Amino acid sequence: MHDKQFVIGLDFGTKSVRALIVDLHSGCEVGTAVRAYADGVIDEHLPGTTIRLEPDWALQNPNDYVESLRQVIPDALKQSGVRADDVIGLGIDFTSATIIPTTGDGTPLCALDQWKTHPHAWVKLWKHHAAQPEADRINELARARSEAWLRDYGGKISSEFLHCKARQILDEAPDVFAAADKLLEAGDWLVWQLTGVLSRNACAAGHRALWQKTRGYPGNDFLRALDPRLDRLNETKLAGQVILQGSRVGGLTERAARWIGLCPGTPVAAAMIDAHAALPGAGVTESGRMVMILGTSTVHMMVDSAKHPVPGISGVIADGIIPGLVAYEAGQAGVGDIFEWFVEHAVPADYFERAASRGIGAFRLLEEQAAQQKPGEHGLLALDWWNGNRSVLADANVSGMLLGATLATRAPDIYRALIEATAFGTQVIIETFEAHGARVNEIVACGGLAERNALLTQIYADVTGRPLHLSAAQQTSAMGAAMLAAVAAGTFDSLADAAKQMAQPPRKIYQPVQAHHAIYRILFQEYRRVHDYFGYGENSVMKNLREIKRRAHCDARA
Amino acid sequence: MHDKQFVIGLDFGTKSVRALIVDLHSGCEVGTAVRAYADGVIDEHLPGTTIRLEPDWALQNPNDYVESLRQVIPDALKQSGVRADDVIGLGIDFTSATIIPTTGDGTPLCALDQWKTHPHAWVKLWKHHAAQPEADRINELARARSEAWLRDYGGKISSEFLHCKARQILDEAPDVFAAADKLLEAGDWLVWQLTGVLSRNACAAGHRALWQKTRGYPGNDFLRALDPRLDRLNETKLAGQVILQGSRVGGLTERAARWIGLCPGTPVAAAMIDAHAALPGAGVTESGRMVMILGTSTVHMMVDSAKHPVPGISGVIADGIIPGLVAYEAGQAGVGDIFEWFVEHAVPADYFERAASRGIGAFRLLEEQAAQQKPGEHGLLALDWWNGNRSVLADANVSGMLLGATLATRAPDIYRALIEATAFGTQVIIETFEAHGARVNEIVACGGLAERNALLTQIYADVTGRPLHLSAAQQTSAMGAAMLAAVAAGTFDSLADAAKQMAQPPRKIYQPVQAHHAIYRILFQEYRRVHDYFGYGENSVMKNLREIKRRAHCDARA
Repeated sequence: MHDKQFVIGLDFGTKSVRALIVDLHSGCEVGTAVRAYADGVIDEHLPGTTIRLEPDWALQNPNDYVESLRQVIPDALKQSGVRADDVIGLGIDFTSATIIPTTGDGTPLCALDQWKTHPHAWVKLWKHHAAQPEADRINELARARSEAWLRDYGGKISSEFLHCKARQILDEAPDVFAAADKLLEAGDWLVWQLTGVLSRNACAAGHRALWQKTRGYPGNDFLRALDPRLDRLNETKLAGQVILQGSRVGGLTERAARWIGLCPGTPVAAAMIDAHAALPGAGVTESGRMVMILGTSTVHMMVDSAKHPVPGISGVIADGIIPGLVAYEAGQAGVGDIFEWFVEHAVPADYFERAASRGIGAFRLLEEQAAQQKPGEHGLLALDWWNGNRSVLADANVSGMLLGATLATRAPDIYRALIEATAFGTQVIIETFEAHGARVNEIVACGGLAERNALLTQIYADVTGRPLHLSAAQQTSAMGAAMLAAVAAGTFDSLADAAKQMAQPPRKIYQPVQAHHAIYRILFQEYRRVHDYFGYGENSVMKNLREIKRRAHCDARA
Repeated sequence: MHDKQFVIGLDFGTKSVRALIVDLHSGCEVGTAVRAYADGVIDEHLPGTTIRLEPDWALQNPNDYVESLRQVIPDALKQSGVRADDVIGLGIDFTSATIIPTTGDGTPLCALDQWKTHPHAWVKLWKHHAAQPEADRINELARARSEAWLRDYGGKISSEFLHCKARQILDEAPDVFAAADKLLEAGDWLVWQLTGVLSRNACAAGHRALWQKTRGYPGNDFLRALDPRLDRLNETKLAGQVILQGSRVGGLTERAARWIGLCPGTPVAAAMIDAHAALPGAGVTESGRMVMILGTSTVHMMVDSAKHPVPGISGVIADGIIPGLVAYEAGQAGVGDIFEWFVEHAVPADYFERAASRGIGAFRLLEEQAAQQKPGEHGLLALDWWNGNRSVLADANVSGMLLGATLATRAPDIYRALIEATAFGTQVIIETFEAHGARVNEIVACGGLAERNALLTQIYADVTGRPLHLSAAQQTSAMGAAMLAAVAAGTFDSLADAAKQMAQPPRKIYQPVQAHHAIYRILFQEYRRVHDYFGYGENSVMKNLREIKRRAHCDARA
């Protein structure tokens, strides 16, 4: 046994991969490095060609995952001074559903001359949103057949799911579909590349591929009803054992060890979804604590010993995050991107000039000014639906609203109202959880937005009336991936044990100010009422406007 | 009789007076001049003192009216080359209710050393909005007593009315109230100064002082119930015959003739409200044509041979504009000021920079870009209540709303949605008129906004589905004042005759585009539904937010 033992967590995000080296005994982060994917998000042309992609497409190049990995691990080792033979495990978290079609030996179809000019042969990134017609058909069929699994996804699956992407390939490129011996998560594909063993992680299979511990994938009856060509999908293209995240899939092959500069045989863990890895990463292993990853959008996650069917929640999955517990996933489709939109498109020059003269950003100036206000002082109320609503309406066709504007309304007022609206959106999710039996006593926040914006975190504490813990890990998901590695290495018996031992105490705790919470309770009732009025179809103006807009665009093109 | 005959119309606005010299035979505008009031709108300190005014106060200095008049008439004569003895009449329009307290000989109280440091001794400008508690009490009492006159003001009078301002003086400065031998409209006061004859014009008395042709002012019973100290108000402080606008009050006194450089004895007409003068000024003397003065706010006026009680309309007054016909007045509290707010507080630097590089204003650039859109293309819907709602809700406590925002929403989209919202607000007024028997076949628009903004005028035509005539007169109200002068001079028997003879054909006619109108019919139904939902109390969130805001401000001060 070595004196020192380290694990590496690899966090494969949308644009880059981060490697985090963690000291197993202290739980400390001793080194980190980031590498961007050379082709990034492919949403205009296939790389090196003039082949244009349709709107809502988002692809990636699987070679980028391998190449960035070959750089980022040596970088992190060098930065930390850790020796390769002191690394006892490798864990991966990955965006999902990020789906790759491969041959039987794992070669990506897009790496083959025959297929490389077919867009459908490439990796479909999680945010590839062009499979909406397929999602609609799957939802319709599942409802018509009263498929039991539908309830576990809030009654409606999103176009991001594996089955929607698979069905889109089948619809639009049946030859590519036929050529794909396997369809799998890019995270599982990468583990396969590193170990030579094909497996699928239960986290992504559960949350994004309709797989359930007791029933497996949707049955062949359903698949055939969806399309006869999907017959035996589960036994063919989806073959490969589903195993718990953190399980040891195998050791690094000689070839893979050479690629990344680690020792052959180093244990590699089954992957998990990047967002979901933040829950163990933040040290949450029990019920009552909701983890919130605040970024462009927000993901909310919980675990509980019991399975409560919660309507409008994206996923309720046994073993989905912490094995042994039921995972709950909800989300808000627009958060940080609403604030970005606001500052870019609705804030006058004056604020930028004043901020620049003080050497700060416009965001910081708006935050300062908004922070001077008391709750309710601006007289505004917003609905945070600029990017639709994920939970609990699960409706992409609602839209943003601002109400209460007067001639005295100023940019910091609107900025604060938008932050509050996203906090109210989180409160709707919390109340929905609690109404169906899953208590939320405390919030654990992570992600860039939570770290940067103290006004926002305080408002979330004040609106929800719950303490908000800021996660200790700078990169909470990568820390979760490191915990997977520690489990695969055998240091801990379970992911829950790893999380309990390795997670650090919160960096900061925001306590709710009771006087503010009292006002926000009143404002939240107002939010809830317009939320329900516009969200549940009593007034369908938001959808009607989208339909009128669609027709106006069609007329304009005709 | 002279070879050439001219009349002068004087348009006393909020910040300045305009003189317009009109050739009586051709109806042509031959000269014009403008002079600003030295003290302008007094809303911070009494001039030359450190005496601070409360919020919502707006005063003026009566000496400014005389001084600006002494300059503007010689300016206009000089500019036009018209000789003083070719001027055969003088007509005045004036903001209203703009109320001045005077001694028995017409000396303004604020001109006396004893009273000049008392804010209540000064002129209360029309937009002095500090008498809301008084308006509330008057409305409450009138409702409780089922006063018949209340119905003619849409069931609720605004704080701008003479009685509210009078009652505020009584409440807050009973000594000033006692010292005021007369309380009158500044327009009537100025005519008194010019002729030595005290009279009151029926237009302002009817529209702003509850006076009615058949019943006169509210009776003494009501006044005593309102406050015992108001006993015999009608016979004392409100004394002075109410006469039709355009009646000859008298000739210029020697002193006044010297002031302004015209001939003694020149006929001076009874005044009328500035907005209302635009109706004859635009040549409208019959039913079916609605005159709209588009500016910071919008005033809508109609005449009809019959009296239809129209709910939510500011005034239904016999002889109120064109003697012999019933006048209808409605309004929108915020129009141009909403667009100003938007451009100043919610448009990013980029638009200003691009506009500047082309040597145009940001408004023009936004107008160009918004004009390229088809109706409905931006997917937005707004409620135009940034400054409350005058007609038909008569509710200052509602507020602005924008709905349908997405991450793709841009400034020209919002700008167009705001213009459309104000057009929808006008459509609500039109439909209310028509539902109660007053047809609106055509719109006649005047005011700076209508002249500058072709997108706006076309949208109003498209939304209402009615032709929109742009008034010929550059200064429609001043032209109306010139018509008053022509009536007082005896050239025409009535204001209607003067308007028929002197008004020019419209400068431009905007025809509704039927395809656009069809889309706007659909969008208007959506507007109407949220208008009614938030406007009629089904959801009182806008008022609740104001109340929460008020409490937040109080707490912050405490």
